[in-house]
Order: sequence, then C-alpha cells, then structure tokens
Amino acid sequence: LLPTLSSAQNVEPTPNGIKYPTGLTNWRVIGTSIRNDNNTQRVILGNSIAIKAARSNTEKKQWPDGTILAKLVWKNETLPTWQAATVPGDFVHAEIMVRDTKKYASTGGWGFARWKGLELSPHGKDKEDAQQPCFECHKAAESTGFVFTQPAKMP
Amino acid sequence: LLPTLSSAQNVEPTPNGIKYPTGLTNWRVIGTSIRNDNNTQRVILGNSIAIKAARSNTEKKQWPDGTILAKLVWKNETLPTWQAATVPGDFVHAEIMVRDTKKYASTGGWGFARWKGLELSPHGKDKEDAQQPCFECHKAAESTGFVFTQPAKMP
Ligand code: HEC
Ligand code: HEC
Repeated sequence: LLPTLSSAQNVEPTPNGIKYPTGLTNWRVIGTSIRNDNNTQRVILGNSIAIKAARSNTEKKQWPDGTILAKLVWKNETLPTWQAATVPGDFVHAEIMVRDTKKYASTGGWGFARWKGLELSPHGKDKEDAQQPCFECHKAAESTGFVFTQPAKMP
Repeated sequence: LLPTLSSAQNVEPTPNGIKYPTGLTNWRVIGTSIRNDNNTQRVILGNSIAIKAARSNTEKKQWPDGTILAKLVWKNETLPTWQAATVPGDFVHAEIMVRDTKKYASTGGWGFARWKGLELSPHGKDKEDAQQPCFECHKAAESTGFVFTQPAKMP
C-alpha cells in the first residue's frame, strides 16, 4: 500500500546547489496558509527532524540542523460542487528551506530553493538570484528565526 | 526521529460507532481548502489506501473499501509577520469519512464522524445526529461519489 513514487525522480538542483528532496509529498503536515496578495493556498510540510521540532511542546520553535521545511503552492479555484469553498487549482511551485547554521550562515542559517510547476524546474538565474530574494523577504520573520509559519495546533 | 505520539490516545468513538484513527495527524496530504462561508481553512489527509487511490492516474477517483479521508479544520487568523497571509488559528475539529460500501450503504457507502476541539470530543447527540446531517450536505457531491475534494495536483 505504498504510494506511487513521485514522478519527480530526476529533478535538477537549484543554481545555489540545493537538491530536491525526493518523497517530499509524503512528508507530514506543519500547517496551511492562504496568500491574499496572490490568490494562492499552501500546505507546509516538514521532514522528520522538522516534524519532531514542530510537534514538541516548546513555545518558541527551535529548528535543528537537518530540518527541511517545505511548501506546496496552488492557485485558488472554486469548488464546482460547493461554490463557497476555494480549493487547489494549478500547481505553482514547491519551495524548501534547509537548516544548516554553518553552511548557510549568510542567509540566516537557511538554504532556500524553489522548483516551478509540476515539472519542477529549478528557480533562479544564478546562485544569488536563487536565494537572496527569498532571504530578503524572510527577514520580515527575523523574530521567529526567519520562518513565518508557526506550527498549526493539532490534536 | 519518530514524532511524538498524538496526545489523543483515548478518544471516545462517535455515537454512530466510529473510532478515531490514532496517528491521523501523521497521514499524507490529499489537498487543502478554504471555506469562505465560515472563515476556516483545512487540510485533507488520507490513510495509505486513500493516498494510493488519490495519487493514481485515473481521472475519476475510485475510493476502495478501507479508505479513510480526514480533514483538519482551523479558524482563519492573520499572520503577524505578514498581514497578507491567513494562517491556522484555533483548531475547530477533525472529521473523517470511512469507506465501507456494505456497512454504510444507507449513507452513500461512507461512515461520517467528527471530533471537536483539541480534546476531540465526539460530535452528535445520537447515531442519527452524528452522521445524517453530514450525508445530507455531502449529497451535493453525489457526482463525485459524495466526496467534495479532488486530489490536488502534485509533482
Ligand atoms: C514576498 C515575500 C516572500 C518571498 C520573496 C519569499 N517568501 Fe517564502 N514565505 C513568505 C511568507 C509570507 C510565508 C508564510 C506564509 C505562506 O506560507 O505563504 C513564507 C513561507 C515559506 C516557507 C515555509 C516556511 C516558513 O517560513 O513559513 C518556505 C519553505 C519558503 N517560504 C521558501 C521560500 C523560498 C525558497 C523563496 C524564494 C525562492 C521564498 N520563500 C521567497 C514570504 C516570502
Ligand atoms: C454544510 C455542508 C457540509 C456539512 C454539513 C458537512 N460537510 Fe463535510 N465537506 C463539505 C464541503 C464543502 C467539503 C469540501 C471542502 C472542504 O474541505 O471544506 C467537505 C469535506 C469533507 C471531508 C473531506 C473529504 C471530502 O468530501 O471532500 C470530510 C472527511 C468531511 N467533509 C466530513 C464531514 C463530516 C464527518 C460531517 C458531519 C459531522 C460533514 N462533513 C458535514 C460540506 C459539508
């Protein structure tokens, strides 16, 4: 009863040298979000290290080295059978943040990477372009370690 | 690196006799949704049988007996560090639909159950109340087997 393996077996790394984590779509949930400024909805996932940290009972989350946070983003679409529901339409991109405090010291201890579309084409013209704009925006979340997402409350 | 077990170890069954599936928060993602009529956001998860069906390449989804679809629902909240993002606030409830075409023949082949709040208290005054209103509403999705959710496109 294992799921079909991701079709994304041979995804190219991003120009800043980050590899796509195969099996990402099998990771557990940290939260969801809606971006009212660009008409998308998202799910935030984590690898095992991330999930352990996210589900620990500490008030301020500590993300240890090895953490990978991931986000899947879809365009909003109206559910035909229930017009008041907005559901995932086209797939926009997958993004990750990899925690390595030494390697990524210049970008807050996080390596940033994005792959676009269902074909997962790596984002960024060069190393700088692949990560710097991400980090610039994530500076708004400096008070929470450059991570916007606070793990959703779960039973 | 296994996650902390759910705190929800001794959850009461619903009045229609459905047990809470322990470990539900570790299940994989089928999709997300936003309900504009009640200011909530959701993630839809599935057990292994559900995920296999959801990720198969058939146009019209077939949900075999043993499928469990689950939904976690949160009140919308504004993300303090990015006001244009709406994120999960209070946890509202967990809901499941269990596929058993014989046992649940009178409700479209699905057993319905809801547990409210982080304490997961079972919903419904009696057997009828626990499932009938769910089924009545899900009749709007009869054309898709009483399931509203169409699996989100994933790489
Ligand atoms: C315009 C601002 C902005 C830019 C640019 C941006 N992000 Fe984010 N990012 C956000 C916000 C806001 C969130 C939280 C809400 C959400 O999930 O959309 C977020 C969330 C994330 C998350 C989930 C973890 C977290 O911090 O909440 C990842 C992973 C992520 N972004 C990666 C990236 C990558 C990779 C890039 C660049 C290729 C990037 N981001 C660029 C604003 C931005
Ligand atoms: C007022 C209408 C309405 C009622 C009542 C209702 N549902 Fe739903 N349900 C929906 C809609 C619309 C969706 C899809 C959008 C979403 O995820 O919210 C949905 C989705 C679900 C899903 C995810 C699978 C799917 O069909 O998309 C589950 C599980 C579920 N409902 C269980 C229940 C249970 C259990 C009850 C009763 C205790 C219930 N529902 C009552 C409208 C309803």
